[in-house]
Parts: sequence; structure tokens; C-alpha cells
Amino acid sequence: MKRVYFHRDSKREAEGTYDWLVDEVKELGEDLKNEDKESLEDEFADVLAWLASIANVLNIDLQKAALTKYNNRCPKCGQARCICSF
Amino acid sequence: MKRVYFHRDSKREAEGTYDWLVDEVKELGEDLKNEDKESLEDEFADVLAWLASIANVLNIDLQKAALTKYNNRCPKCGQARCICSF
Repeated sequence: MKRVYFHRDSKREAEGTYDWLVDEVKELGEDLKNEDKESLEDEFADVLAWLASIANVLNIDLQKAALTKYNNRCPKCGQARCICSF
Repeated sequence: MKRVYFHRDSKREAEGTYDWLVDEVKELGEDLKNEDKESLEDEFADVLAWLASIANVLNIDLQKAALTKYNNRCPKCGQARCICSF
């Protein structure tokens, strides 16, 4: 993602890129009841792509961030099978 | 993520889990100007975690979906270094 889009995303900066993420999240929400799995996969890919774009602009390693917080355990209850009450 | 949260996410179903994603995306937006990188990484991790949770409920492989659409190329212009006008 960085190689394909960073030159554009860095001009747009994090806030401008964030607006695109919000649009894609809305599209995903509208598509959730869609029974066409390919179309749904497409929307998931878009949300992840824009999330990665913002992370790249901010020089954040998305995968590392996720693995640091969610390392096969729920960070709230500390369990490998979450027992939080939400 | 599936092992830690699927038993909870599957009860909540995709739409209920989506509401949590929207909340986390809002928190990320509020945190974008935060200069504390650790806090920002935390928000990115949360958004990715909820996105993965919805994908799990729908039996969608998030990583595969992203690699299918964005395989080192922009799916719109087909270039390895995007030249789209957005």
C-alpha cells in the first residue's frame, strides 16, 4: 500500500485521508446485508486499504500496532477467550 | 482475533459489531492530532480489530480480500504507483 499510494496520501495528510476512510466505512455498513460475498470482500479491502494509508502517512506500522495490543489475548480482560461484559 | 472474540462477535452479528467499528473510527479521527504515537497506535489497533471481527462474523478472510483487490497495484488505474486523479 505504501508503494502504491504514499505519494498521494502524504500530500493529502492524515486528516484528508481519514475522510476517505469514513466514506469507505459507510459503504461497508450499507453493504453488510448484501449477499454478494465478492462485493462485501471488496468493501472490506477498501476499508483496510484506507486505514493502512492513514497509518502510512503517520509512519505507523499497522500490523505491529495490532499485534502489540491484541497479541492473541483481549487487552481488557487479558484472556485468550474474551470474558468482557460488552 | 477469531479465537479471542468470535464467541462474542457471532452473538452480536455483523450489524451490531459494525456499530463498534464506527465508534472506534470516530475515536481514531479525534486522536489524529494527538502527538502521542503510542495512543495513536492503540486506536489503529482497535479499528483493525473491529474490522477483523466483522469479517470473522461474515466468514470473510480480510487479508485475502485485501490482497485480491490491492495486489501491489491500484485497482482503479492498474498502476504500481497510483496515477488516479483523486
